[in-house]
Amino acid sequence: MEAFRQAVVNTLERRLFYIPSFKIYRGVAGLYDYGPPGCAVKSNVLAFWRQHFVLEENMLEVDCPCVTPEVVLKASGHVDKFTDLMVKDEKTGTCYRADHLLKDFCKEKLEKDPKITEEKAAEFKHVIAVLDEFSAEELGSKIKEYGITAPDTKNPLSAPYPFNLMFQTSIGPSGVSPGYMRPETAQGIFVNFKDLYYYNGNKLPFAAAQIGQAFRNEISPRQGLLRVREFTLAEIEHFVDPEDKSHPKFSEVANLEFLMFPRQDQVSGQSARIIRLGEAVSGGIVNNETLGYFIGRVYLFLTYLGIDKERLRFRQHLANEMAHYAADCWDAEIECSYGWIECVGIADRSAYDLRAHTDKSGVPLVAAEKFAEPIEVEKLVITPVKKELGLAFKGNQKMVVEALEAMGEKEAMEMKATLETKGEVEFQVCTLGKDVTIKKNMVTISKEKKKEHQRVFTPSVIEPSFGIGRIIYCLYEHSFYTRPSKGGDEQLNVFRFPPLVAPIKCTVFPLVQNQQYEEVAKRIAKSLTAAGISYKIDITGTSIGKRYARTDELGVPLAITVDSTTSVTLRERDSKQQIRVSLEEVASVVKEVTDGLNTWNDVLWKYPTHSAAATED
Amino acid sequence: MEAFRQAVVNTLERRLFYIPSFKIYRGVAGLYDYGPPGCAVKSNVLAFWRQHFVLEENMLEVDCPCVTPEVVLKASGHVDKFTDLMVKDEKTGTCYRADHLLKDFCKEKLEKDPKITEEKAAEFKHVIAVLDEFSAEELGSKIKEYGITAPDTKNPLSAPYPFNLMFQTSIGPSGVSPGYMRPETAQGIFVNFKDLYYYNGNKLPFAAAQIGQAFRNEISPRQGLLRVREFTLAEIEHFVDPEDKSHPKFSEVANLEFLMFPRQDQVSGQSARIIRLGEAVSGGIVNNETLGYFIGRVYLFLTYLGIDKERLRFRQHLANEMAHYAADCWDAEIECSYGWIECVGIADRSAYDLRAHTDKSGVPLVAAEKFAEPIEVEKLVITPVKKELGLAFKGNQKMVVEALEAMGEKEAMEMKATLETKGEVEFQVCTLGKDVTIKKNMVTISKEKKKEHQRVFTPSVIEPSFGIGRIIYCLYEHSFYTRPSKGGDEQLNVFRFPPLVAPIKCTVFPLVQNQQYEEVAKRIAKSLTAAGISYKIDITGTSIGKRYARTDELGVPLAITVDSTTSVTLRERDSKQQIRVSLEEVASVVKEVTDGLNTWNDVLWKYPTHSAAATED
Repeated sequence: MEAFRQAVVNTLERRLFYIPSFKIYRGVAGLYDYGPPGCAVKSNVLAFWRQHFVLEENMLEVDCPCVTPEVVLKASGHVDKFTDLMVKDEKTGTCYRADHLLKDFCKEKLEKDPKITEEKAAEFKHVIAVLDEFSAEELGSKIKEYGITAPDTKNPLSAPYPFNLMFQTSIGPSGVSPGYMRPETAQGIFVNFKDLYYYNGNKLPFAAAQIGQAFRNEISPRQGLLRVREFTLAEIEHFVDPEDKSHPKFSEVANLEFLMFPRQDQVSGQSARIIRLGEAVSGGIVNNETLGYFIGRVYLFLTYLGIDKERLRFRQHLANEMAHYAADCWDAEIECSYGWIECVGIADRSAYDLRAHTDKSGVPLVAAEKFAEPIEVEKLVITPVKKELGLAFKGNQKMVVEALEAMGEKEAMEMKATLETKGEVEFQVCTLGKDVTIKKNMVTISKEKKKEHQRVFTPSVIEPSFGIGRIIYCLYEHSFYTRPSKGGDEQLNVFRFPPLVAPIKCTVFPLVQNQQYEEVAKRIAKSLTAAGISYKIDITGTSIGKRYARTDELGVPLAITVDSTTSVTLRERDSKQQIRVSLEEVASVVKEVTDGLNTWNDVLWKYPTHSAAATED
Repeated sequence: MEAFRQAVVNTLERRLFYIPSFKIYRGVAGLYDYGPPGCAVKSNVLAFWRQHFVLEENMLEVDCPCVTPEVVLKASGHVDKFTDLMVKDEKTGTCYRADHLLKDFCKEKLEKDPKITEEKAAEFKHVIAVLDEFSAEELGSKIKEYGITAPDTKNPLSAPYPFNLMFQTSIGPSGVSPGYMRPETAQGIFVNFKDLYYYNGNKLPFAAAQIGQAFRNEISPRQGLLRVREFTLAEIEHFVDPEDKSHPKFSEVANLEFLMFPRQDQVSGQSARIIRLGEAVSGGIVNNETLGYFIGRVYLFLTYLGIDKERLRFRQHLANEMAHYAADCWDAEIECSYGWIECVGIADRSAYDLRAHTDKSGVPLVAAEKFAEPIEVEKLVITPVKKELGLAFKGNQKMVVEALEAMGEKEAMEMKATLETKGEVEFQVCTLGKDVTIKKNMVTISKEKKKEHQRVFTPSVIEPSFGIGRIIYCLYEHSFYTRPSKGGDEQLNVFRFPPLVAPIKCTVFPLVQNQQYEEVAKRIAKSLTAAGISYKIDITGTSIGKRYARTDELGVPLAITVDSTTSVTLRERDSKQQIRVSLEEVASVVKEVTDGLNTWNDVLWKYPTHSAAATED
């Protein structure tokens, strides 16, 4: 596993799929650049995401700034709760994640201490299992109990305390407007709900989407490309009536079958199993059709990209993992050398976010359903008589009025009855901290029939959130394989990217260095550009086998070798099969295959095959 | 002008092309969201930019983080020099840009003070003209002289002092690693030069490109969408041998003619004039072919997008505007209601950036040209004899050795002659602050013939840098017009976006609300999705004229009205011409026109026209 990962990562770094950022200055942990092929892969993944989600569902895509004022992230809860627990080396000030240190300690004991008792081993295993649930105090006492010190210096450690993971900054020159780099793109959508709902003709359901950078100032980044301090998110917020979470297109995904890992199976110690999505929803495993629809669409998205479906599962959050407001939550997890990695979260967040921003901003983020016919409802009407109340309570009048108006139906009807029989009643006003006497002439209470024309409610939000960098990294691992060179003396690396993902769609190789072939290569290049196909010309004198190996390592699906002035050899990466195609046709054949209109097998029988023996190696 | 701008901006805000960010929290100055149509326009502009520059020139696109450690921006000069001069209200602490206050004062005097003397008027005009050149002291003394106070409170102002415009933050939890949100994307490319050069087969010229967010913590943002605190840049860094700035494809743009505004014409008070690009380069107005090539490509890019070529000019920087290291610099300026706005900068930055990072990082960012034949050169060789020098100068030996090695050719050859004739020589060692006596046995000096196989040099950088948001805003103004409604009772807004830019390519309207037509509309929608065309269905019962007006205002080029179950009416936005097309063909006709394979005029004669009288309005 380690060796496989090293082989993948070495290839990725050597071929500039990614580059540790600011490398000439010794880099910054958790920051990576996408180099040319990585950047092309990312563009392709994002373009496909837009096609598969935004265009397909007519979503409203928006693009909001990364710099976010504090009030927004206060409302969302990030200012108070987006934290990790940290400990400091008490002498050097170096910071560590408290849970990491405790986990590392337990692991090390389990793996390397032969004298450990069975009892102790069970304890360490238990600690690792429940680590995520520990409070600062619990973490601190375990660290003390085990005598854990700073890994680099063996100095004593501080008690754990929360560190906010947002990058903080200041907006404007005065220094009095704190801001943060957004930790997710979702908030930009929530605060625009009102405008977007209007844009959609005041109709539900609809979805908004956003692709953009998000930031997380990790205490000590690990796991290479999986845990980084800046990353691209693609998020969808699908707004729906909480009383109707059906989805008109659910039938299109209902028959998909794939690995699911329901909460119940996790708790009872079973493994993930293949479930038909339709059954998962009708059986109540997945909370509702809309959530189920997105699970299905995410499955299709990831497998089209080339994620191995045997190493992809949808895991339901356990009750204690889920935010208190969430109705249900599933993670698309992809298995790679680091284990099962959460790459997409699909959560029914109920009305939480819109309510939070409604409360903080005072702007109601609600939807309304107009009734076909007005509906008659009985409504409690409490009318305080302000003049009498003013005479009786003077400066306290306002508090008494508010307390009267705030009565529930039961309390009010009891008061009405008492006033009618006794003429007055003792009434507790919390804001005054005492009881007051309410007389019959101070308030009228009645029930009235009213016609209502609409129902006003806060929509639920179903949120599929994609960590694009993580998906791409897992895709690299799933696409990578090695095969022996023709001579058998070395192992060659290949990425089996589908054309959709491949950073470059084809390469053009003049077989030998001469002007005629280079002219032909240029003509082909021009026709490829006109067809919108990205390509690379390699006119070095290197052997054709070496040149094939070089582009296999970039995952380029097709190679055109110029070995005559009228026709060329077209070679497919994984099968190494070769066919002969005329100069005029070659760009359109490449386009058919890379656009997915035809497969390689479709074109294979149409053209004469070319013997590989002469050129390969 | 003001009224026109208001009409454009109202339409843009009402139709959610953009939204002031965090509006429900009363917003943040200088931050804007792209709403759904704005976001689509931006995606289209960026996709075309990739096609027109990256794909066309086989550029190496990279994607680097926004969070940047201080050392990088120290090297680039941003930490020290990326500042504006600021004054503070001495009582409230409110901040203002010093030059803005002075400019506003002078303008106000010129416009509103009838008693102003001719002499004073001339002075104010002069101040406005040279404002950008003022030092902090000069600005401060003018503010004092004119008695300028804080505009909101009339309180006295502090002296001007520099405010760094970068958003500052801190990387990691310790607080000891300062970082900034990048003010441009270029630095991410420069620090990767070595890897990119290697990726390109160690060959020049090549270009790298990057699209991404950049940040500028403006003191007090003005000019709406033109001066914002976060924006998308698209930058190209074209690396070239400083001794050969020719461009193989220059002939493809040499015959373009457009408005240019050379430095000389500005100084002598002339206006911009139409110049053929080939002449501008051969006549020495534009410094070199590569710079000229990019000017031509930028012209094509902007005009394809729909920028009016009469309101686009290329203005050369004046000598005092240009950075000291720049060889030449041209701005693509677009005229809008705010005046001529710099939207693209095209600069020959010479070797400045790569040298700065070489110096700071110690990693040589250089290129090498291998000679076909090794070249014989005569080289000065100075060999200090350390043993003798150590005996003579003890602790000062190192300084003497360094001073000897640092001698130029002339000085060294004179020393050699003196030593040969007199056996010793007086030699000034600056680092010691005194002369020492060098004897014949302490150093050998000779000239040797050596073979050199390559020339090592720092490449020049030619940088076209695109402010995407500014280009889009100017495009909105250039695309906007109004025309009377059919009844003549109101003015309707239209954006004449080319299909390339249009946020949605077509709309689908069932003429009346019935199930049959809605079924047809859904079938058409499916075929449009399959063809990759973005569309919007409007099934409201609103009159067809109103629905046309609604989508004209979004700049949608084509509308499909479903008025039968076998064929439909296809209407073009600007001409309002209508043709009848069969259900089966309509998606492909829309695709032809919106992909630019055919124009509307091409398809117009192929299909029967449809009388507008019945439906419009």
